[in-house]
Amino acid sequence: MIKLHTDNLGKVDSMHGLSAGELEGNASLIETYLKNIENKDQGFYTSINDEALLDKIDSFAANIEGKYTDIVVLGIGGSALGTICINESLTHLYQNMLSKTGKPRLHILDNIDPVLIKETRDILDLEKTFFIVVTKSGATPETLSQYFYFRDEYTKVNIPYNEHFVFVTDPKVGFLRTTSLNESILTFEIPENVGGRFSALTAVGLLPAKLIGLDIRAMIKGAQEMRDKFLKNSLDKNLPFQIANIQYLLSKKGKTINVMTPYAQKLVKFAEWYRQLLAESTGKKHNNDMEVIHTGLTPITALGVTDQHSQSQLYNEGPNDKLHIFIKVNNLGPEIPIVNPQPEAEIVNYLNNTSFNHLIDTEMQGTTEALTQNSRPNITIEIDEINEETLGGLFMLFEGATAFLGEFMNINAFDQPGVELSKLITKKLLTNHAN
Amino acid sequence: MIKLHTDNLGKVDSMHGLSAGELEGNASLIETYLKNIENKDQGFYTSINDEALLDKIDSFAANIEGKYTDIVVLGIGGSALGTICINESLTHLYQNMLSKTGKPRLHILDNIDPVLIKETRDILDLEKTFFIVVTKSGATPETLSQYFYFRDEYTKVNIPYNEHFVFVTDPKVGFLRTTSLNESILTFEIPENVGGRFSALTAVGLLPAKLIGLDIRAMIKGAQEMRDKFLKNSLDKNLPFQIANIQYLLSKKGKTINVMTPYAQKLVKFAEWYRQLLAESTGKKHNNDMEVIHTGLTPITALGVTDQHSQSQLYNEGPNDKLHIFIKVNNLGPEIPIVNPQPEAEIVNYLNNTSFNHLIDTEMQGTTEALTQNSRPNITIEIDEINEETLGGLFMLFEGATAFLGEFMNINAFDQPGVELSKLITKKLLTNHAN
Repeated sequence: MIKLHTDNLGKVDSMHGLSAGELEGNASLIETYLKNIENKDQGFYTSINDEALLDKIDSFAANIEGKYTDIVVLGIGGSALGTICINESLTHLYQNMLSKTGKPRLHILDNIDPVLIKETRDILDLEKTFFIVVTKSGATPETLSQYFYFRDEYTKVNIPYNEHFVFVTDPKVGFLRTTSLNESILTFEIPENVGGRFSALTAVGLLPAKLIGLDIRAMIKGAQEMRDKFLKNSLDKNLPFQIANIQYLLSKKGKTINVMTPYAQKLVKFAEWYRQLLAESTGKKHNNDMEVIHTGLTPITALGVTDQHSQSQLYNEGPNDKLHIFIKVNNLGPEIPIVNPQPEAEIVNYLNNTSFNHLIDTEMQGTTEALTQNSRPNITIEIDEINEETLGGLFMLFEGATAFLGEFMNINAFDQPGVELSKLITKKLLTNHAN
Repeated sequence: MIKLHTDNLGKVDSMHGLSAGELEGNASLIETYLKNIENKDQGFYTSINDEALLDKIDSFAANIEGKYTDIVVLGIGGSALGTICINESLTHLYQNMLSKTGKPRLHILDNIDPVLIKETRDILDLEKTFFIVVTKSGATPETLSQYFYFRDEYTKVNIPYNEHFVFVTDPKVGFLRTTSLNESILTFEIPENVGGRFSALTAVGLLPAKLIGLDIRAMIKGAQEMRDKFLKNSLDKNLPFQIANIQYLLSKKGKTINVMTPYAQKLVKFAEWYRQLLAESTGKKHNNDMEVIHTGLTPITALGVTDQHSQSQLYNEGPNDKLHIFIKVNNLGPEIPIVNPQPEAEIVNYLNNTSFNHLIDTEMQGTTEALTQNSRPNITIEIDEINEETLGGLFMLFEGATAFLGEFMNINAFDQPGVELSKLITKKLLTNHAN
């Protein structure tokens, strides 16, 4: 169950909010936008019916079960963020510190800081470690460097490295694809028409998820249900369209910053995942008519209740340039009572007969009501609980919304031409140094 | 050594950058602003000479040495962010997973999600755990709730709880102050004139730092050196003023978002610490003349090189509304070579004869040059290495800059009136429920 609450938009004055009329005014666009999206042949919503992939992952996982204490994902950006989110959302918060879980620890290396490389190496027993190398192009410098490093670590101690690696990469092209053939390294494919930031529900996210014991079929089921909503020509039922519509209409009212705030510790990395999706998909120099527009929504990640004590001052009193997207989880586990040792003390008697579950809900209510009273537009996505199915649904919800947002903004939501310049400069500098 | 590089501001066209003339134009304000700040009697730069505090912390640490496996800080916002930063910047990235470090593990609980409470409880042995309860007012609901909960956990198993707690709070007033007297719980003081977000260099940050074995005198030394610069009536020497000046001048050119990007895995939480400082200090409805202005700089945290693969597209091509503050660390530990197994392959030969240390530096150069070519203003703070001294200096650098920024913006950088409304709503809802 994933619900969207937009009532607070109507309670905010019209300069900063959206009336029912405004929310419904674009309903007729759904059909056209869906056709446009279909014409773009993007695989993020069509690739999630791949039973053969799920079977291949299942059988691979069964093969290596019990053999490894540590799984390390080498990847960056879209090759890492979905997996980080899956790991943090669906496992114990201290998973890697618990002993005897029966499951391997999962580490995702999405940086090249030598300190990170060295200190990760410190905790690994190479014999008991398995690496998943993830790069769509097969040529990401950061990921290749990590692969070269760990490959060499095995070689140095005479362990056959190829049994300790699997590649997740393009089906046909790229350096990793060639290497896999030459060196007998098993591979999983990222469909050609699924870009990195849309790839959480491919082998990129599903393989590591399965290896730490998660139910990847439930994740796919949740995504499929949301995909069905995404394809509906109905404003009421099409949650992804509703969100894109709100983001677009409010961007026209100057709300060009989107703050995503889950009120759930485990979803903080979902906001990080979305941060890439929104920034890379909407931050564009040109529109589809090749006019220079320098457009884009700037994503910010936040966490309830923690960031009430960090960002609320700015969000309530500062520039009114933000749309707030909250995520509320109905069931945050068993009731944990707060036992007030001085129930009669006036200064703390508001904490009588309550629990952390009630407190976090109430603080969220206080936060959204205050923002609304201060004319700050906000919407809330409600889920029953954090599990594989809802997480799969949330991924698809925002992937679909982002595709629609591209249509609203008349931009290509699926490219990223603006990252090339820094890559060129870097490669030129490295080449001069290397040769 | 902390240096500031502002050259790229002059390479960006004048609409988006700052000329040498613009940078120097405000030098005459330093004297007045320093006097204004002095009149505000803020303790963030005067409280760091407290030898008695350092001695008290030393002796407390010596007393409990070896007794505990886990230290838990209960605190939120300014009571947590400095400590989180200190912990993540100055310890092994996998500190809490390493066995036999001889130092207790440190956990900072800055949320009330019941899942966080429960799963933290899972990993603690109460006999071997020590709690530091941090709240300036002594009345923060989230922190009191956590304290009530863990207090009760001890009571349930008949362990005298008061030996397992220390309070860090206001010297005179508040619920915790009274409780400490009634129940013989040791306390450390937060000076009355140091607000939460400016308190990292008080007992708030120093006590936990000491308990995990860090050199708090070096941290203070670094802060004192920067404090001396902060008090200099000289544009050249006053780094905090230079940063505030740039932030202010560029905000007038529409750069109201400040992105802080350390190119160092361990400094990612420094940017989180600064995020609160900038948001709460500058996000204001009123200026000092009580005019309604809804002003504020919106902070964003990022991480190099990771976020090149998440945010660079937006930052290079999207709206030109951001100032980028990079942090460069000269020494990121021993050289870790990247051993290219196919040095002759053209597609990867740029990775010949290089190392992670060189790669991260080069990518940072690629990133800042690309931003500059795309007319995106950026500055870089350079430090030799991440250690207690530089971290103390960085805290003071940005605290000082924030105080100057308040002067430039004609606002009170030291209050947070905008958080009251949500607190009121929350307490009202809780009180209705509790009684």
